[in-house]
Amino acid sequence: MLEQLKEKVFKANLDLVKHGLVIFTWGNVSAIDREKGLVVIKPSGVEYDVMKASDMVVVDLDGNVVDGNMKPSSDTPTHLELYKAFPEIGGVVHTHSTYATAWAQAGKSIPILGTTQADYFYGDVPCTRSMTQEEIAGEYEKDTGTVIIDAFADRNPNHVPGVIVKNHGPFSWGKNADDAVHNAVVLEQIAKMDFIALQVNPNADMNEHLTEKHFNRKHGANAYYGQ
Amino acid sequence: MLEQLKEKVFKANLDLVKHGLVIFTWGNVSAIDREKGLVVIKPSGVEYDVMKASDMVVVDLDGNVVDGNMKPSSDTPTHLELYKAFPEIGGVVHTHSTYATAWAQAGKSIPILGTTQADYFYGDVPCTRSMTQEEIAGEYEKDTGTVIIDAFADRNPNHVPGVIVKNHGPFSWGKNADDAVHNAVVLEQIAKMDFIALQVNPNADMNEHLTEKHFNRKHGANAYYGQ
Amino acid sequence: MLEQLKEKVFKANLDLVKHGLVIFTWGNVSAIDREKGLVVIKPSGVEYDVMKASDMVVVDLDGNVVDGNMKPSSDTPTHLELYKAFPEIGGVVHTHSTYATAWAQAGKSIPILGTTQADYFYGDVPCTRSMTQEEIAGEYEKDTGTVIIDAFADRNPNHVPGVIVKNHGPFSWGKNADDAVHNAVVLEQIAKMDFIALQVNPNADMNEHLTEKHFNRKHGANAYYGQ
Amino acid sequence: MLEQLKEKVFKANLDLVKHGLVIFTWGNVSAIDREKGLVVIKPSGVEYDVMKASDMVVVDLDGNVVDGNMKPSSDTPTHLELYKAFPEIGGVVHTHSTYATAWAQAGKSIPILGTTQADYFYGDVPCTRSMTQEEIAGEYEKDTGTVIIDAFADRNPNHVPGVIVKNHGPFSWGKNADDAVHNAVVLEQIAKMDFIALQVNPNADMNEHLTEKHFNRKHGANAYYGQ
Repeated sequence: MLEQLKEKVFKANLDLVKHGLVIFTWGNVSAIDREKGLVVIKPSGVEYDVMKASDMVVVDLDGNVVDGNMKPSSDTPTHLELYKAFPEIGGVVHTHSTYATAWAQAGKSIPILGTTQADYFYGDVPCTRSMTQEEIAGEYEKDTGTVIIDAFADRNPNHVPGVIVKNHGPFSWGKNADDAVHNAVVLEQIAKMDFIALQVNPNADMNEHLTEKHFNRKHGANAYYGQ
Repeated sequence: MLEQLKEKVFKANLDLVKHGLVIFTWGNVSAIDREKGLVVIKPSGVEYDVMKASDMVVVDLDGNVVDGNMKPSSDTPTHLELYKAFPEIGGVVHTHSTYATAWAQAGKSIPILGTTQADYFYGDVPCTRSMTQEEIAGEYEKDTGTVIIDAFADRNPNHVPGVIVKNHGPFSWGKNADDAVHNAVVLEQIAKMDFIALQVNPNADMNEHLTEKHFNRKHGANAYYGQ
Repeated sequence: MLEQLKEKVFKANLDLVKHGLVIFTWGNVSAIDREKGLVVIKPSGVEYDVMKASDMVVVDLDGNVVDGNMKPSSDTPTHLELYKAFPEIGGVVHTHSTYATAWAQAGKSIPILGTTQADYFYGDVPCTRSMTQEEIAGEYEKDTGTVIIDAFADRNPNHVPGVIVKNHGPFSWGKNADDAVHNAVVLEQIAKMDFIALQVNPNADMNEHLTEKHFNRKHGANAYYGQ
Repeated sequence: MLEQLKEKVFKANLDLVKHGLVIFTWGNVSAIDREKGLVVIKPSGVEYDVMKASDMVVVDLDGNVVDGNMKPSSDTPTHLELYKAFPEIGGVVHTHSTYATAWAQAGKSIPILGTTQADYFYGDVPCTRSMTQEEIAGEYEKDTGTVIIDAFADRNPNHVPGVIVKNHGPFSWGKNADDAVHNAVVLEQIAKMDFIALQVNPNADMNEHLTEKHFNRKHGANAYYGQ
């Protein structure tokens, strides 16, 4: 079932390692088949060097396993919330990449200070609110999705394809698994650059016209970047 | 004698290099055979690229060499103190990994600021007290064990599988050599993340309910992470 | 057309990846044939691992494509401004390398604090002024060249072969593509060293006689460095 | 002439690259044959990937080239001063390694904060005084040696095998070329650890008894580290 998508999700998970975003099993990628309403996701806690494409797990949007012999990632309910709330996304990534996770631990949104960020994110990368004791003790992974969705109440997830979950780490998304991985790499890089930039100048900021220009030359109606 | 355990300890020592935790001979791994009361440990000051499994040294819990042609690691008495004080551990690792050692030099416990740490450590990673002049001049390596044990007077070493020895560097442990190496990698990573997080926000902290949730979903009675 | 120069520009683009200055397609190298008045530059948004020498694009100094099947880098107008304003340069590089870009985000010139910098740059590496709303909305890439040229009103671009474009990233140049790449590597390295140095001592500075000595022993009339 | 020593110096120069201490040609290693009073040193400005053992240059202690077809490193007079002032050393290394050079740019001695440093350096790694305008304009490379020697007026160069030259970078030495390279690696590592440690705790310090213990267990009369 969904063999092609399993292959893509498998490869995207390995790409996290290749890009240095993941050590051990600290990351997961999923992708959705919107027509069938099914999500393919990495199994929980399986070492990357023994994992096979056929180990990928297929779940429906209620979290029921419909194909696969292993348990899906413990973060599956978070992925599902995002697919339900953000109807245009096709892939989701979660990592504990070093700098983005450090910003999560700092509990701070990553401010937009440069065109590198503006090429992908229209503004700051938000940090979620603290979870309540009830959310933590209850449906924790599902409500990790809730606090992400709350952070996008007045933001467009297609224009800001990532978030920092407070005290936890980054999630990113995109039109498919590869695109979500790409955005995970960008998120880690801008987290690193902002850390350095703010050490050099704590008052650094950027003109909003520059954000608009860079985002739109890649993603706007008259985009002219690329072939 | 203990050929299988020698092989495991040997490979675990090489894993320290593979994970980037060790340069030159700045690290050592040991493991214990609890039934026999014997510990296998790396020889002192031997280059990793010429070291063989058969070079591993077997000592009893009093530090007597019972097998092997080389001198055991100069840190052997510290390892032995830990095995005697923490009866459930099966492996011990010492490194001078960059960030964890920097925290040791700072003389600060590594505060728990994120779920990455909570997945492995139930709370802060303690920094030991200063050693006295008598301890330093006397049985220094044995008393390095003493200050570690003192730091766990009111902590559970099975729930906090590592420590920062003040002005020195990290020790970690686990149910066997591989597990202790795994925790050494985690310790270095959380030391790096906390360094960055506290530069971004010196007032960063984390809700204790989140610590409890993450630790218990991997290690509690109802753990549901992994297969 | 210009096959040899295409090959050199192609290889110089790959060198950016080899030196760790570029992820994805975040960089571009060009070189000029001064006699013909033609510039060879990387195509826009093409992945480095599928790019071929024959994909390089030839443009004239007005930006007209005169050879090649692909669109040139979106940064082409910036490169052209630099070739027109700085008549002795033969190659131009733009990257989003981590530390130099962080300085750009900080909006700060990179002060000269060491002989590593003085071996290549006679003084600070300037950060450009903010671009106006009109410049951003108008001929943005061309005016990125304008603000660079403004920063060199009283500086010699042959003695300071690089610049930090505010909120954007570094540009560097040299007598050919390879030399421009070399200076891009140096610029990233001194950006990193200055970040660290100023954390250690915010009041760090350097005697101007030392700048003069080091620059001139490599580049002056009586240079004696090298063979 | 001195073919074996040329081979050793050649390999030691390549080791600088292997250990990540050098980019381009920014480093040099020499070694001395004390009986003959001759020094073998890397040629000036030669790329490491084309350099051969036979390119090494032999000079006498007055700096006269006595064998070799190339010009010796421009830093040769500094090396010679060190060999003349420190009679027990057999090899000298100069690099622009990132963290040690940043400390040089900060103009600060690297304080002893940990046992990693104490295992090799009995105390702080000194930073030299500023050079005078006369020293810079005159015999600059020779007087780079002078300021190093001045920094050791009350220190033992055999117990502190390295130095930070203000605004320039590190020099290290040892009983031969390999040992000097080893100390260059240590110097870079402790420069990095101290940078991090002092960000975490600006008041970090270390008990002098711990320095003495660690230095002496490796280098003292009753050393017991290693085989």
